[in-house]
Amino acid sequence: MTAVRLLGLDPGLRFTGWGILEADGNRLRHLADGVIATDSAMSVPDRLCALHQALSALIESFKPDEAAVEETYVNRNGTATLKLGYARGVALLVPALAGLPVAEYGAKHVKLSVVGTGGADKEQVAMMVRRLLPGATLKRADASDALAVAICHAHHRATNNAWMKGKVMA
Amino acid sequence: MTAVRLLGLDPGLRFTGWGILEADGNRLRHLADGVIATDSAMSVPDRLCALHQALSALIESFKPDEAAVEETYVNRNGTATLKLGYARGVALLVPALAGLPVAEYGAKHVKLSVVGTGGADKEQVAMMVRRLLPGATLKRADASDALAVAICHAHHRATNNAWMKGKVMA
Repeated sequence: MTAVRLLGLDPGLRFTGWGILEADGNRLRHLADGVIATDSAMSVPDRLCALHQALSALIESFKPDEAAVEETYVNRNGTATLKLGYARGVALLVPALAGLPVAEYGAKHVKLSVVGTGGADKEQVAMMVRRLLPGATLKRADASDALAVAICHAHHRATNNAWMKGKVMA
Repeated sequence: MTAVRLLGLDPGLRFTGWGILEADGNRLRHLADGVIATDSAMSVPDRLCALHQALSALIESFKPDEAAVEETYVNRNGTATLKLGYARGVALLVPALAGLPVAEYGAKHVKLSVVGTGGADKEQVAMMVRRLLPGATLKRADASDALAVAICHAHHRATNNAWMKGKVMA
């Protein structure tokens, strides 16, 4: 089995966490992580453009083979959910435009896969991400969830092809 | 004042209505309208790609000067709102990537501007769109709201520049 390069994304209009790892069977290797921030003083269309351009540049630089996007739940209000939807739409679109298969995983499913319990908190996720990916410094906390969804995808892609059929793993 | 070409969009993941008109001061002229449908059997990333490509082709063909997007309210549930958000995100992104100024108008505001009351129903909006744009056949009902938001923008752009600052007219 040859190594595949996976891009994990935890999208948001304000901050989109990203992480890239290489999976070679069960062996995972951290390559890079970070956060794309958009300026809340800019209009929403301009912020979506900025997100689009940053994601396109990431994909061009790191040339990942597959992408995985976290499906976060929001129970605040319609406007907040709609705005999260804009960012997720762009996060799903850009890798697909680049020809990458894109998998989606629910937040609980990511936690279950990485920590072993769907109710894990952010610190537990970050701790397990550091343990599974020794190189990850996680200077920026938002990148932790992005690496977690990439790890979750690395586990699933080896054993399960449901994601290939566009099914969200909730 | 020279004529400007306006693209109106009423986005949705299943159906995105679009309409193009030319505004020359107070005079409006219908150019084209239609609906972009995406296949619900496809994965969400592939549907967003299809929407992106159809919108890009529209902009390339008709070369509009400005775009206006309807902000629909959804009170169903989080998942439905999130999916609407994906489509709206792409509808805001594609014209912005093409360098067009993009205005957003709330559904009530569009109705108020086109029919004279924020509580107008779909038939009243379609009737007024036909009256204001004699060439519009509106064979596809979804295109009516897209032309309505373009008309709303034509009214506003002449008198108000708030939309230029990225403000949503609710």
